[in-house]
Amino acid sequence: MGGSLARAVKEAGLPWRVRGADRDPSTLSRAVAAGAIDEAADDLATAGRGARLVVIALPVLSVPDAVSALAPGLEPGAVLTDVGSTKLGLIRRVEEVLPPGVAFVGGHPIAGTEDSGFEASFAGLYRGARFLITGGARSTPEAVDLVRSLWESLGARVETIDAATHDRVFAVISHLPHVVAYALVNAAARADAGLPGLLSYTGGGFRDFTRIAASQPAMWRDICLDNRDEVLPAIDEFLAETRRLRALIAAGDGAGLEAAFAAARVVRRALAEAPPRAEGRA
Amino acid sequence: MGGSLARAVKEAGLPWRVRGADRDPSTLSRAVAAGAIDEAADDLATAGRGARLVVIALPVLSVPDAVSALAPGLEPGAVLTDVGSTKLGLIRRVEEVLPPGVAFVGGHPIAGTEDSGFEASFAGLYRGARFLITGGARSTPEAVDLVRSLWESLGARVETIDAATHDRVFAVISHLPHVVAYALVNAAARADAGLPGLLSYTGGGFRDFTRIAASQPAMWRDICLDNRDEVLPAIDEFLAETRRLRALIAAGDGAGLEAAFAAARVVRRALAEAPPRAEGRA
Repeated sequence: MGGSLARAVKEAGLPWRVRGADRDPSTLSRAVAAGAIDEAADDLATAGRGARLVVIALPVLSVPDAVSALAPGLEPGAVLTDVGSTKLGLIRRVEEVLPPGVAFVGGHPIAGTEDSGFEASFAGLYRGARFLITGGARSTPEAVDLVRSLWESLGARVETIDAATHDRVFAVISHLPHVVAYALVNAAARADAGLPGLLSYTGGGFRDFTRIAASQPAMWRDICLDNRDEVLPAIDEFLAETRRLRALIAAGDGAGLEAAFAAARVVRRALAEAPPRAEGRA
Repeated sequence: MGGSLARAVKEAGLPWRVRGADRDPSTLSRAVAAGAIDEAADDLATAGRGARLVVIALPVLSVPDAVSALAPGLEPGAVLTDVGSTKLGLIRRVEEVLPPGVAFVGGHPIAGTEDSGFEASFAGLYRGARFLITGGARSTPEAVDLVRSLWESLGARVETIDAATHDRVFAVISHLPHVVAYALVNAAARADAGLPGLLSYTGGGFRDFTRIAASQPAMWRDICLDNRDEVLPAIDEFLAETRRLRALIAAGDGAGLEAAFAAARVVRRALAEAPPRAEGRA
């Protein structure tokens, strides 16, 4: 996320000096060599020194600690934002450690791939994607405008949404599908252990369906834990529906099963006809 | 499936006269007009008359009745085959109604899209796809050779597999994912009813993941019911793994959750690196 953002800022020719920070110094060297960042910071305390805008791209549970580490270098008037897939709890915890005079604007670009790391970054990731801004107690109209202008400059379509709604929506359409994909791949792997070669029969269908199970484990661990109040009910609704379909199969209820499948097809086809609000993945 | 097969036979210039049968006369008119079939049969009894090879492309639970209907027109030496996603029960039931001297070879092209009907058919569907042949008590080496030569002529890669193994493999890698996709879309639709607009946030990720929920309900109803002895344990394994992930989230067990996600990622990445045995979907 961070690598693609830096590349996009440079490719768009924005008049920003970009300073990068990363736990891995070799990532920073590569980012400098690739022209994605102008300078590398040795640690977070220096990374934010004098910065007008700081974008934090880390697994969501690490964001508050990163804000604490950034705090000594931040000056009043600085704006912090993030790119995490959870908002309500994250914003609350960030606000507990945010220095006076510094604003925080929750951000979520609806973009990304199952690949991670600087090598997987590319400048076009956010072009045409939606970017959701969620307010907070320490957000200001000026701070929101700054974050909005950054992402719009990169070709994203910026919308606002309240943090609680955001977390409920993405629990269902993004966090739950990731849990399901991970579970499905683990279940298939167990079946393959009992019947070696089983997975060799998988074609494009299974692979499309489980692509998101190749996503970064630490990132999704944090998302599921941070948003557990919404993720757990979403999993429960899904489990209930799966058990309902299982019961129809066990009972040999062809009419009930066809009706359940047909209902899903109608919903899924309507989605196929309605273009997503943007091209990004969610 | 049947429409694409007829188009492929014609496009490959095979020296076969193709007779088509369908419940819907307008489908047959369009198939004749498109040059996909040479002639249309009014009913199944006439459809198989004098045929050397009959390919049945119907929801799997309809196949035995279709064989009964075809029987009066079949001559000794005729070969019947199918394109269904279940094999063990289907073959047994077909054998109960198969006329003397007629062979049945179970077939399963690992190809298809979520679209159905003649309008969605195309000649290239099977090119490069795997085609699985499952034997049976009424299969003969000559019948297998005939079915194999047809599909190889269309560019498919033909392999043999025993019917029980086939049904166990596809329960896990194909039937289960369809049930899961239908359940996920229905659960998301219910959430959308409670929070209108929720589905409008879905991007390419949700849509890739649920593409197979647009598949034909009657076809998948039959597959799930016909293969329920394998599908139900596959669903149970998946439910157990999903509940395990849910418990890790509920317990806030970050290490356990990351390990579970990382295990799935390793398996999924290995699949991405190993090319599927063919390009088809499964």
